[in-house]
Amino acid sequence: MATPPPTDLRLLRGARSRHTVLRHAIDIASLDGLTALSLGRLATDLDISKSGIQTLFGTKENLQVATVAAAGEAFHDAVVVPALAAERGVARLRALVERWVDYASTPLFAGGCFWAANLAEFDSRPGPVRDALARQQRQWRSLLAAELRHATEKGEIADLDPELAAFQLDAVLLAANTSLRLGDETATAMVERTVQGLLTPPQ
Amino acid sequence: MATPPPTDLRLLRGARSRHTVLRHAIDIASLDGLTALSLGRLATDLDISKSGIQTLFGTKENLQVATVAAAGEAFHDAVVVPALAAERGVARLRALVERWVDYASTPLFAGGCFWAANLAEFDSRPGPVRDALARQQRQWRSLLAAELRHATEKGEIADLDPELAAFQLDAVLLAANTSLRLGDETATAMVERTVQGLLTPPQ
Repeated sequence: MATPPPTDLRLLRGARSRHTVLRHAIDIASLDGLTALSLGRLATDLDISKSGIQTLFGTKENLQVATVAAAGEAFHDAVVVPALAAERGVARLRALVERWVDYASTPLFAGGCFWAANLAEFDSRPGPVRDALARQQRQWRSLLAAELRHATEKGEIADLDPELAAFQLDAVLLAANTSLRLGDETATAMVERTVQGLLTPPQ
Repeated sequence: MATPPPTDLRLLRGARSRHTVLRHAIDIASLDGLTALSLGRLATDLDISKSGIQTLFGTKENLQVATVAAAGEAFHDAVVVPALAAERGVARLRALVERWVDYASTPLFAGGCFWAANLAEFDSRPGPVRDALARQQRQWRSLLAAELRHATEKGEIADLDPELAAFQLDAVLLAANTSLRLGDETATAMVERTVQGLLTPPQ
């Protein structure tokens, strides 16, 4: 391989800085919320010049939107991608939930679930940040609903409304995230028993 | 009635100011979170001297704890007290949920559910504020669980685990609060159908 020309090297360094900054931004946002993000705080924490961060992201809102997108990608890689190896229907649903519990309890982000922290903060603030968070939540629920529909169509589970069941399952996962943060050890069992209840075999 | 002596008048004025300040503090905390509360902001918003607010509450943390307690009282008055008129079991459970949906959708506080907003913010921050929020959530879940237990013991509904069902119901209420804030009109139907599912009559 030839050495990349200087412009490409600059782009590559830019991409790497962007990744480093966003990774830290996600941790701040999951712990303290997206409003706690600022170009200045990131510059101080990462010992980079504030003008460098400004060049990468422009405004605070752009930084917030980029952080939401980066969190979405990290979630997708950690929770969704591994579950795609499981067969569609009950098996994939169980894999998604198992990965989700890992994601919230390990946790992938310093403050636990990114959406639990930030939807609560932004649900009353119309704008591009709220839109991005809400879109990601809808995608996640649609994914759960699709596997629930698949499971009923395959006759793996008793008939149910996939949209309602996905809403309930997502709600229980978010509540379990809060319980885990509060040190309540029963949260995982609550998730397991909810899944068990939804995935009743047909009579 | 005799005119109260000057000391009592001062106490009365103090209690009134305290109530006014806390009512505004609850609205700020439900919209922007308890961390957005500050003695200075309250003083500016309400056009009171900062030293007056300081005399009433002392520190920011004391103000936060007092705000949590005041929100708990307002919730109790708006949601719990009216439901106590309904017969224990299914009737009271339905009344509690109906009142809760009113509380979140009217809404009682400017930013919707106070605990949805603030548990997400404080669940990773050990201390008296988190402890107070978590205690109130446990009390609310216990109240739901007690009525579910009552309903099964009276034979009004099919057998279920009251603790699990209360966890699920509370989770769905919190998720519905977020949906309502995001303008999703299906949230109330999701709550109603979840209640319907839990309150299945015995076979």
